[in-house]
Amino acid sequence: MIDKLCIIGVGLIGSSLSLALKQAGAVAEVVGYGRNRDNLERGRELGVLDRYESSIAAAVNDADVIVVAVPLGAMQQVFAEIASAAPLDALITDVGSAKGSVVQAALAECGDGIGRFVPGHPIAGGEQSGVEAGFATLYQGRRVILTPLPQTDAAASARIEAMWRICGANIEYLDIEHHDKVLAATSHLPHMLAYALVHHLSNLNEHDEIFRYAAGGFRDFTRIASSDPVMWRDVCIANGDALVDLIQQYQGELDRVAMAIKAGDADELLRLFSRAKSQRDLQIGNC
Amino acid sequence: MIDKLCIIGVGLIGSSLSLALKQAGAVAEVVGYGRNRDNLERGRELGVLDRYESSIAAAVNDADVIVVAVPLGAMQQVFAEIASAAPLDALITDVGSAKGSVVQAALAECGDGIGRFVPGHPIAGGEQSGVEAGFATLYQGRRVILTPLPQTDAAASARIEAMWRICGANIEYLDIEHHDKVLAATSHLPHMLAYALVHHLSNLNEHDEIFRYAAGGFRDFTRIASSDPVMWRDVCIANGDALVDLIQQYQGELDRVAMAIKAGDADELLRLFSRAKSQRDLQIGNC
Repeated sequence: MIDKLCIIGVGLIGSSLSLALKQAGAVAEVVGYGRNRDNLERGRELGVLDRYESSIAAAVNDADVIVVAVPLGAMQQVFAEIASAAPLDALITDVGSAKGSVVQAALAECGDGIGRFVPGHPIAGGEQSGVEAGFATLYQGRRVILTPLPQTDAAASARIEAMWRICGANIEYLDIEHHDKVLAATSHLPHMLAYALVHHLSNLNEHDEIFRYAAGGFRDFTRIASSDPVMWRDVCIANGDALVDLIQQYQGELDRVAMAIKAGDADELLRLFSRAKSQRDLQIGNC
Repeated sequence: MIDKLCIIGVGLIGSSLSLALKQAGAVAEVVGYGRNRDNLERGRELGVLDRYESSIAAAVNDADVIVVAVPLGAMQQVFAEIASAAPLDALITDVGSAKGSVVQAALAECGDGIGRFVPGHPIAGGEQSGVEAGFATLYQGRRVILTPLPQTDAAASARIEAMWRICGANIEYLDIEHHDKVLAATSHLPHMLAYALVHHLSNLNEHDEIFRYAAGGFRDFTRIASSDPVMWRDVCIANGDALVDLIQQYQGELDRVAMAIKAGDADELLRLFSRAKSQRDLQIGNC
């Protein structure tokens, strides 16, 4: 049971966490802080928040657990304000989709309190954002990855793990660098590819017509290009090295496809597409 | 009313056409031909086909309308067999997703019958294939593009247009080259990107783990990599020039993204992602 949960940055991720914990009766009070007062007020109306505050210092007062759910580029400033105001026994976790930069920010700001910081990343979400997008079952059956530091208290990790389990999530532990490499491949790279595709097509002369003849496959493929640009700008900056490596490797793969098409190499194309299809069907399911 | 519809290649597209026309009472008999006898037999059991034949010559006998729904690479041989056996007044159409190569094949094989050939492309379908994937409402509200030749009889186009309208489709006319360029952008290029991504990730050492941490966005983004490899091999060969141009232009766009990440150019990344999101939301809807 959490007496007071503080959410810094009340979007899809934070509000879904609040709703899941409230539905489970696992939290007594949820207090929010964010820069957009209308969003906070809407959160209160929707029952996501019991109340909200106009400063981080006021929001974290008396908190048991503080969840930082702001874009990666805002983490360090938030940690600094938390560190100067939070109770000494409050646990801190985050939901950032790249962990290296978050941990650096926490190390820089949290001082002796670093043992109570548990870096986390729920593999859930979507293109919708804001408090209204939240729903209590978002984390059911989803993975939450925790990437504790050597300094992290085991008891702190255990409590954060328990919080996410109550929401229906499956917990896994990864080391930080490994997390960032794997997520660069499955999440950060695909977002770059989708943004780049839509941006490229938008620049073509016949762009209205191109989108006009787009079918369901295109809609699915480009859905992630409707994601929050600020969040993804920050992911790029935070996980840039892994991401640039992957983009360059991927360009090598595209070169091979283009060469096979140019050469009319039907066997190579069939081999490549068949391998991709069988891997996807095997790993993800044919859906 | 079509007395006898002949479908050469009974997959998702052909079987959905049959079911839609049957549901509308717009066809008396549907006869199929394909290389896979089990698939044809299943089509008969499902009511997609009234009967099937073991040769194209037998299948097209007495047909009013012949729909060619085979992979692009098989079109020319099929046209040759149709030309030597079909009634002189039978209309012929196809459903290929690139039109230039189909029209060349038809010109090579159909001789004086070319006026009765109406090149077509329903913008519908999906990753599922085979007769069992068909359903009567597939074409409801979807676009069917017709790309008639100068030689095409106006009455033939009008009848094929009417057939698709009965299925609930909206008909549009494009010239052949323009069709192939637009479809390369919205359909062929995204398929290459998805195949290349899954193929690339499959080659990484930690591929099992990478797919393990894939979330819903990845599932959507890579869905088209579960499409039929033979069909897409043939699209690459048929529309290779337009596709290679687009892949190379897209590589330039990816270069710009990678450079902006390397340079830590947050403003450029935000500008690019914001433009892509607003274009997608505007053109496709935020879903």
